Amino acid sequence: MEKLREIVREGRRVGEEDPRRIVHAFKVGVALVLVSSFYYYQPFGPFTDYFGINAMWAVMTVVVVFEFSVGATLSKGLNRGVATLVAGGLALGAHQLASLSGRTIEPILLATFVFVTAALATFVRFFPRVKATFDYGMLIFILTFSLISLSQFRDEEILDLAESRLSTVLVGGVSCILISIFVCPVWAGQDLHSLLISNLDTLSHFLQEFGGEYFEAREYGDIKVVEKRRRNLERYKSVLNSKSDEDTLANFAKWEPPHGKFGFRHPWKQYLVVAALLRQCAHRIDALNSYINSDFQIPIDIKKKLEEPFRRMSLESGKALKEASISLKKMMKSSSYDIHIINSQSASKALSTLLKSGILNDVEPLRMVSLLTTVSLLNDIVHITEKISESVRELASAASFKNKMKPTEPTVSLKKSDSGSIGCAMPINSRDGDHVVTILLSDDDDDTSNNVVDDDTINEKPEDGEIHVDTSCVHGVGMMLEHSLGVRILQI
Amino acid sequence: MEKLREIVREGRRVGEEDPRRIVHAFKVGVALVLVSSFYYYQPFGPFTDYFGINAMWAVMTVVVVFEFSVGATLSKGLNRGVATLVAGGLALGAHQLASLSGRTIEPILLATFVFVTAALATFVRFFPRVKATFDYGMLIFILTFSLISLSQFRDEEILDLAESRLSTVLVGGVSCILISIFVCPVWAGQDLHSLLISNLDTLSHFLQEFGGEYFEAREYGDIKVVEKRRRNLERYKSVLNSKSDEDTLANFAKWEPPHGKFGFRHPWKQYLVVAALLRQCAHRIDALNSYINSDFQIPIDIKKKLEEPFRRMSLESGKALKEASISLKKMMKSSSYDIHIINSQSASKALSTLLKSGILNDVEPLRMVSLLTTVSLLNDIVHITEKISESVRELASAASFKNKMKPTEPTVSLKKSDSGSIGCAMPINSRDGDHVVTILLSDDDDDTSNNVVDDDTINEKPEDGEIHVDTSCVHGVGMMLEHSLGVRILQI
Repeated sequence: MEKLREIVREGRRVGEEDPRRIVHAFKVGVALVLVSSFYYYQPFGPFTDYFGINAMWAVMTVVVVFEFSVGATLSKGLNRGVATLVAGGLALGAHQLASLSGRTIEPILLATFVFVTAALATFVRFFPRVKATFDYGMLIFILTFSLISLSQFRDEEILDLAESRLSTVLVGGVSCILISIFVCPVWAGQDLHSLLISNLDTLSHFLQEFGGEYFEAREYGDIKVVEKRRRNLERYKSVLNSKSDEDTLANFAKWEPPHGKFGFRHPWKQYLVVAALLRQCAHRIDALNSYINSDFQIPIDIKKKLEEPFRRMSLESGKALKEASISLKKMMKSSSYDIHIINSQSASKALSTLLKSGILNDVEPLRMVSLLTTVSLLNDIVHITEKISESVRELASAASFKNKMKPTEPTVSLKKSDSGSIGCAMPINSRDGDHVVTILLSDDDDDTSNNVVDDDTINEKPEDGEIHVDTSCVHGVGMMLEHSLGVRILQI
Repeated sequence: MEKLREIVREGRRVGEEDPRRIVHAFKVGVALVLVSSFYYYQPFGPFTDYFGINAMWAVMTVVVVFEFSVGATLSKGLNRGVATLVAGGLALGAHQLASLSGRTIEPILLATFVFVTAALATFVRFFPRVKATFDYGMLIFILTFSLISLSQFRDEEILDLAESRLSTVLVGGVSCILISIFVCPVWAGQDLHSLLISNLDTLSHFLQEFGGEYFEAREYGDIKVVEKRRRNLERYKSVLNSKSDEDTLANFAKWEPPHGKFGFRHPWKQYLVVAALLRQCAHRIDALNSYINSDFQIPIDIKKKLEEPFRRMSLESGKALKEASISLKKMMKSSSYDIHIINSQSASKALSTLLKSGILNDVEPLRMVSLLTTVSLLNDIVHITEKISESVRELASAASFKNKMKPTEPTVSLKKSDSGSIGCAMPINSRDGDHVVTILLSDDDDDTSNNVVDDDTINEKPEDGEIHVDTSCVHGVGMMLEHSLGVRILQI
């Protein structure tokens, strides 16, 4: 009884995690009943086969081919269809050939054919490229070839068998494909797209919060709040192990027809490139995470000085990722992450200038290890963030995203924000005077409040290159960015 | 033509990579021919079924169930067998129930049964635990249940159908299982065991070479040699992505009967624990690797002083992993890695003492970043190595390895080695005077020459606790280990 309740609870959890699973279960049931009733209860069509073998093939095809996503269903269905066709043709040929050789040699010849074909096809299944795309097709190839060439019938009967097998596989396969495409479709491509966006958001969230956690971790009292925030931060861990999911989704996505915002030949491979960079970043973040609570024994005044550029590095990298995620979500080209990357690089430069200024000269080297490692990891992250936004840009152009979000050569000037604090602004190629980058001050920790660009009511003219950047860490420090845009500053 | 040659080349590569694949292809061919000839050409047994449907099920079972490893074949075979049995029974019951309701309602009732069962079973396939172990069984359950309950026969015919389906699945499945177990078996458990050992060796190799690479990288002239060594070092990258392989192998291994050195209930799960730690270590190594060629701009005399403990940390961690790998390979309990872990910890302590001594006081903080990060990563690695050997120890005791390799409370004293240099020795709980740890000096870089413990001719009495440790980096520095054995030194 307790066991049963547990199963029900597990079922509810699985269903709530992704309600499309429940829909999928219904779809399978419907497809099965439809296809079988087509064969069993049809008023038209002959019901000639004694064992209902045609219906069997059709039912079997539905059960085996109907997968969760459209891509997976198409991949299996096409594999099964084509393999059945090819193997059927070859097996008929083999049968014909063997029948020429006389009654005694025929079975031996057929067995040899089956042996050679099965062994060869089994071996070919080990080829990495075949395994990735045609594994199921090879299986069905062996199956159909063996079944048809070993069957002991006269040629016309075999033709019948081959034809009925092919037609039923087609009926079953096509039903699955149609139902999976037209009834609440689950697109692997869409899932991959969303997974990438959510991974970008997760890492962005960590980086935007990290500075605060690092410098304030010991100041908070309420354990529950801290715990909850920590758990929230550690969501990045899911990114560490997302590789196999991504690979599977990308593998299925390439089978899918154009759908929604995804056109023909959407660059799914490029998603894997971005995902790999995200994983690299997540590994650095994993290392960073272990330093959040490290006691870095550095005099409080030095700490205070380091805090601003330090926080900004992390925050701006996080924002760059957020912008990349928004660009992906809206499927629009964007260069608004450039600003954040430049900001993070300038912060990194400021930090390295600060460190060069001898601020740590009186600190014992050993006490610096944690701090310097953190700085070095953050530098890595700034660098990887740049690569990520580069790869997102490539993705955007390979997928022909629209241009709407791209600011036309933004120029930047100083502007006082409403909150009365000093914003920091970076003059870049000042040709046109009315495009500004304003860094608004706000202490809002909320994950979503940072996406001002995402919010059209606040950011009225994103096309004009006016980008409002909301930051929670700038304490009135004006940082001037040095001239070049793409400069890689971090050679410390 | 060029295409064909490429395929042949790929085939040769795939075959050479693992010749068991060729054997497997032959085994599948043989099983297929055997089973089908049993049905087609049998002198005994009735040949009653018109469409050769029994033979079809048998052939189909062979094609679908015969997998590369014994575990995978057993998992699929048992899943298929049990699912067919259960679904057959339920379907007969459903048929009986439906037939009570009269000719018109019967088909509707049957279709409802099929719909509900298929939808439920499809949903249950999403449960993580079901997906991991019984996914294929659920598929076959749906298939068999639908086939049998939808077939329009009288009860005795259905019994026939159910019986023949079950018996042919059994014949096909049992043939596959027997052939896969008794003809050149491929054990997933053995593969997992070997994979873990090879991963341990790979990381060990990196750590043993790292010190040399780090300090000598710029001194070598021959690009080819350097390249080759680099490639050799970077084999660790395979460890980063081995998770899915390990998970799959462990999943299959638990289906396998006792074989070779692996008894009943061998702790395959613990392999995954060790593997996860190895991956953690590999990620640190990945980070380390990026510092190998970093120019760490530190005066040569300071560098020289740091080199010894630095090298020793890395080398001794590497040796600890090597010992763990040997313990696994021989399937014997061992505590010889303790010595190396203590050595690496003492080296880490020495390094931190050196750093504390103010050796870096005149160096600009920024110039230290690369060095200190490397030190911090190495400290992490020393710590993870300790955890790895702990988990290998747990594995050894869970799997009831033999005791042979365990030295009985090793005590350690100073001993002059043949090469005339000073060995370094660590007195630990000196109760018994004649157990020694000698660190022999040698400049041999060879990967295998480090495993003196592995070589019985050199290490004649491993049971007595005399452990010869071969090192290529100790420059006559005697390091005394501070009293406690398990001390975690690295709080820098």
